[in-house]
Amino acid sequence: MRTREAGAGPLERGDQTRRHILDVSAVLFAEKGFAGASFTDLVQASGLTKGAFYFHFPSKEALALAAFADQQERWVEVVSRVADPSMKAVDQLAAMLRAACDFYETEVAARCVSKLCFELGEDPRLRPTLTPYLSIWEELIASIIRRGQVEGDIRGDVDSGAVARVSVAAWIGMNDVARVVSDGADFRARAEEFLEILMLGLRPVVAGETRGGSR
Amino acid sequence: MRTREAGAGPLERGDQTRRHILDVSAVLFAEKGFAGASFTDLVQASGLTKGAFYFHFPSKEALALAAFADQQERWVEVVSRVADPSMKAVDQLAAMLRAACDFYETEVAARCVSKLCFELGEDPRLRPTLTPYLSIWEELIASIIRRGQVEGDIRGDVDSGAVARVSVAAWIGMNDVARVVSDGADFRARAEEFLEILMLGLRPVVAGETRGGSR
Repeated sequence: MRTREAGAGPLERGDQTRRHILDVSAVLFAEKGFAGASFTDLVQASGLTKGAFYFHFPSKEALALAAFADQQERWVEVVSRVADPSMKAVDQLAAMLRAACDFYETEVAARCVSKLCFELGEDPRLRPTLTPYLSIWEELIASIIRRGQVEGDIRGDVDSGAVARVSVAAWIGMNDVARVVSDGADFRARAEEFLEILMLGLRPVVAGETRGGSR
Repeated sequence: MRTREAGAGPLERGDQTRRHILDVSAVLFAEKGFAGASFTDLVQASGLTKGAFYFHFPSKEALALAAFADQQERWVEVVSRVADPSMKAVDQLAAMLRAACDFYETEVAARCVSKLCFELGEDPRLRPTLTPYLSIWEELIASIIRRGQVEGDIRGDVDSGAVARVSVAAWIGMNDVARVVSDGADFRARAEEFLEILMLGLRPVVAGETRGGSR
């Protein structure tokens, strides 16, 4: 599944092992959470000896932070890939949301990011490492909203930062809810609903337009 | 803090003990989560003997489910209390949100609900017990949205169920984010931002109105 390093030439054995541990652990963290996945589970899932495993990751926390950063990087890569300079901002927003839904549906490992962020985030010591996961998305969305305002597709009087914060929080909440309600199956439908309701408020209303109030 | 039972007359000693365990455990679950709060922690926090504790709650899971249900009942009580038949639906929505923010800020124990819902919800066996926590809010919000549509303050062409699902998910996500970013301190500001952006889309637009697009 992970081929980007392979394309860059054969990996050192150590790098391959590290890569393997990260991939396997991300799936386990996504499924069981940080507390739920024991170090023994993780070592067993890797098929490695305890010694080989410890050589790469001396603690479950170090492993979780590395898996978090690694999967977070994949999210940014996958979602940024759909950005196209010729695309209007509002279309880019929708395309990014859909690319993120595709990724969510096909890559169980990627789901560890949100889970680890909030579970590890209970520990104030780790927050400075984790919160950039939120701000990178907030900044990306805010910049697209501002472009949409310049392009005239988004009303100029909304606070782009507020829209971005609400969008990121809604995404995370939909993640939580979809997992418990449908094991993730209705996540995409929820995300589309959110986009529709959000855009209802963001579209500029031009003079003379009627927008279907109930009276 | 919990006086409603006291008002109904003196409690049996067993009920008082159960009440005490529930209150103390809810705080611990709110702070540490289900996996993070060990059974030993919980017994110690209660100040009871292991035997007395076990008599009321034979397992951590049984205790967590009881604390969840108990705090969830308090949420519904506190938030429903602000409903006033003379209030317009849109005002009620805002008043409920603010009452919920007050409760969130003053009652740490109450925060165990969201945490336990998603942590225990990893186990498919427990989901039927947990998901009513979501649907009760979704149904309440949807009914207020529908009333707002009848009252003409909310556009008639939005799906009340979708608005309710998005609102509940956003609330949960804002919970997660605020905890990690500010230890909950900026939760209210996030909730107000959400309400503002949501209402931007829900308000009916009447013929001839201009709504501040950027062109």
